[in-house]
Amino acid sequence: MSPTTLPAAYDSLLAHSRQRKFLEGTAAILSWDQETMMPPGGVEFRGDQLAQLAALGHRMTVEPQVGEWLDRADQAMAGRLPEDAPERVNLREWRRDREKAMKLPESLVEELAKVTSVAQHEWAEARRHSDFARFRPWLEKILELNRRKAECLGWNRAGGEPWDALADLYEKGMTATQVEAVFTPLERRLKDLVARIVGAPRRPGDRFDRLELPEAQQEAFVRFAARAIGFDFERGRLDRSTHPFCGGSHRGDVRITTRFKPSLALDALGSTMHECGHAIYEQGLPAEHLGTPMGEATSLAVHESQSRLWENQVGRSREFWQWMTPRLREFFGAAVDGIDAEEMHGCANRVSPGFIRVEADEATYNLHVMIRFDLERRMLRGDLAVADLPAAWNARYQNLLGVTVPDDRRGCLQDVHWSMGAMGYFPTYTLGNLIAAGLFEAVKRDLPEVPAMFARGEFAPLREWLHAKVHAHGRRHDAATLHRLVTGREVSADPLLRYLEGKLLPLHGL
Amino acid sequence: MSPTTLPAAYDSLLAHSRQRKFLEGTAAILSWDQETMMPPGGVEFRGDQLAQLAALGHRMTVEPQVGEWLDRADQAMAGRLPEDAPERVNLREWRRDREKAMKLPESLVEELAKVTSVAQHEWAEARRHSDFARFRPWLEKILELNRRKAECLGWNRAGGEPWDALADLYEKGMTATQVEAVFTPLERRLKDLVARIVGAPRRPGDRFDRLELPEAQQEAFVRFAARAIGFDFERGRLDRSTHPFCGGSHRGDVRITTRFKPSLALDALGSTMHECGHAIYEQGLPAEHLGTPMGEATSLAVHESQSRLWENQVGRSREFWQWMTPRLREFFGAAVDGIDAEEMHGCANRVSPGFIRVEADEATYNLHVMIRFDLERRMLRGDLAVADLPAAWNARYQNLLGVTVPDDRRGCLQDVHWSMGAMGYFPTYTLGNLIAAGLFEAVKRDLPEVPAMFARGEFAPLREWLHAKVHAHGRRHDAATLHRLVTGREVSADPLLRYLEGKLLPLHGL
Repeated sequence: MSPTTLPAAYDSLLAHSRQRKFLEGTAAILSWDQETMMPPGGVEFRGDQLAQLAALGHRMTVEPQVGEWLDRADQAMAGRLPEDAPERVNLREWRRDREKAMKLPESLVEELAKVTSVAQHEWAEARRHSDFARFRPWLEKILELNRRKAECLGWNRAGGEPWDALADLYEKGMTATQVEAVFTPLERRLKDLVARIVGAPRRPGDRFDRLELPEAQQEAFVRFAARAIGFDFERGRLDRSTHPFCGGSHRGDVRITTRFKPSLALDALGSTMHECGHAIYEQGLPAEHLGTPMGEATSLAVHESQSRLWENQVGRSREFWQWMTPRLREFFGAAVDGIDAEEMHGCANRVSPGFIRVEADEATYNLHVMIRFDLERRMLRGDLAVADLPAAWNARYQNLLGVTVPDDRRGCLQDVHWSMGAMGYFPTYTLGNLIAAGLFEAVKRDLPEVPAMFARGEFAPLREWLHAKVHAHGRRHDAATLHRLVTGREVSADPLLRYLEGKLLPLHGL
Repeated sequence: MSPTTLPAAYDSLLAHSRQRKFLEGTAAILSWDQETMMPPGGVEFRGDQLAQLAALGHRMTVEPQVGEWLDRADQAMAGRLPEDAPERVNLREWRRDREKAMKLPESLVEELAKVTSVAQHEWAEARRHSDFARFRPWLEKILELNRRKAECLGWNRAGGEPWDALADLYEKGMTATQVEAVFTPLERRLKDLVARIVGAPRRPGDRFDRLELPEAQQEAFVRFAARAIGFDFERGRLDRSTHPFCGGSHRGDVRITTRFKPSLALDALGSTMHECGHAIYEQGLPAEHLGTPMGEATSLAVHESQSRLWENQVGRSREFWQWMTPRLREFFGAAVDGIDAEEMHGCANRVSPGFIRVEADEATYNLHVMIRFDLERRMLRGDLAVADLPAAWNARYQNLLGVTVPDDRRGCLQDVHWSMGAMGYFPTYTLGNLIAAGLFEAVKRDLPEVPAMFARGEFAPLREWLHAKVHAHGRRHDAATLHRLVTGREVSADPLLRYLEGKLLPLHGL
């Protein structure tokens, strides 16, 4: 069966899928606009607009015609094309998306979109004033809607829980039990590693990160880095927002944001490299499959593996700083005189248990994720009331990271996710870290020169390898399969721990 | 009949109208984004998105249910509420919008949206390189689609022409014959006025406008002016674009753009005041009628009257400069030393026939509009081929303004309108000028102190008068009726000519 003999039903599905993609892209631009451009007066109306688009998209997905096309195309193509042919992959994923959507009533989809659009604004205000009471009713509403959503989607009643139903939307097949099985030993090993480092005889200096560097200089610096690693500004933008993110409508228009603080140029760099990792994935999705599942990212964990790999395995490597350090003077002038690549490498890899996830070092980062997983799981099960969240949050931080959370702004109000309605999402961050470490071992096996190339500012070989191994496949493989195919191994904690110990212990004189 | 006893059909129409407004607002944000933010890689996809939204909006408008609701609500309300009650106005305008939409096949709506989205990009590129050949096939396509559109909408076969059908979409009831009847004497009187001024013994100096003023200073200056006259930045934004415009989704999110050149701070100010006039109208539409015709601007000519009034009757007045001139130093430092209010007033009112409409002074501006009206009318009638447009354009400029157009960039490629598919639109600019002059005579009759207040930076009384007389009425009255109700007279050229002669002749020693 050649593409010229594809059944008419498949063509109908293609056209339909592209229409859905246009609508999703429209919603994505409106969401980006809301975080970066929209004046305060737009909040309420924007919520209505996003709710409308969500409802229209949902209605389009569940149209009965689509079910008929899927059945006809399946019949015509099964057995005549291999399972991993793009057309079969598209059919499989269209069906999966549709089956999920069919379980959700349009009114719930619409209500979630409307509530979360306004809740994001309320969350931002609550966070600004460290006022949990302001956000509490919104979180309660979102929790209630998510519980209803989980009920609609369904989960394994023998041993499963509501969290699983939501998580499956972000990561195919991910369950709380599975996550727990990975997290429990990882937690122990990371706590040990952090304890060793905190008690270490040597700490890298933080001189660069204490410099007050003008925002305009920081911006030129991060734009240079973004361009160097391969973010395509002809097909994207870089702006500012409170919470950095990667959005946009499709591979031709990918929009990332970052943020700047008076000092902490490394925070801006890290955020930018992170979002560039997401963006390079999006910009690298196959053009010929635009508007179909084969042209979409496969999972949040794989997405996060891309962002973390560029942020950490690249942006916190010794070789990266061998390349970048001599260039710092172009951006920051005499302020950086006397800082060498060794010092920068150390500065970029300081370990310090804190209370802010997005500022966390690589050793403590996953501990932050574990706390969120635990708390949202308990809230969804009904074991933790929203009113008790701040106390539970603070207790977990004391226990796991040994820090006293000073206020809710720097505690349970720090993340945007729950206000966006996203529960079951956080563990994909840690899975992404595990996959990033696995992929980085694999690229060093395939192309041993890659890290040395960073020292010469050569990032294209890594990017092209990622493109061939990950980006070009769209949704062909789920995260676990993709990892197995590329690395030859199952996802596990070992590559991440090897990588962290190999880098962090020597830096701390261990 | 009180609002609590409105028929159920009316409530259905209200909900439906709000949904349409959300969708229109979404398209407006995407269009704004396209002009201000979108990277080049988004062009094609954005065209598809806008086409989809146009088709969805069209489909929503023509739903058979809507016709039934309209009939039922009309029956229930006619004779029980006065004709100008908000509910009756809404019914009348919903019906009008629907009848227009019913005449247009969805495929044509979609094609126009798609073609014009890409054509705007092609126009921008063609203009940049003064390359009419690049734009020509797009203009031919747009002309062809507009002819089909006019055929669908229909026009008076006895004495009318295709232009009328298109113009009616922008200005209820406007026909080419009517416009011609206003334009012919106006052309003669303006040509005389311009000839007298060009041959005058004295010319105001242009010292301020020749200063090279940094863009950041110009931006602070125009933002100050925008805020002073009443643009609400909590419910809007100011950005940059090649062609200044006013967009946004609704009264809570109104977005204007301006542009900056190395010198010509008055150009940036004029553009900003102009777009602020549009924006103050939009921001002033009645909140309680948001999402219905009573919450929408009534016509393009009235819209333009608001922008021109703030740009010219306010921003080019002696009193405005008495207030603003002492403040120039805050923005531009010593560069403006020694410039007094009289000099600024003169500088803002220099008359000089040129080839760029948006840079034209008030005396020549309407001559530019007349050329466009004439040419688009002839193209629509089939009397002028697109290929012959540049020559016809240049000949008319030579004849009417006495200037030799140097290239198509500064000739027939200068305006965005045709690339947006807008034909039948230009005359609303001149009608807007006539209405602005009529309204300004009326406000001076009602509140004789208003001009003197400008000298103290007091713009709220004018704004509130406009709000009560114009903005608060939404689409209750068409342009001609509104003008008659507010001024007691029909729209005519007299107020504009009185205003121009009264201001410009003395400034030129006449």
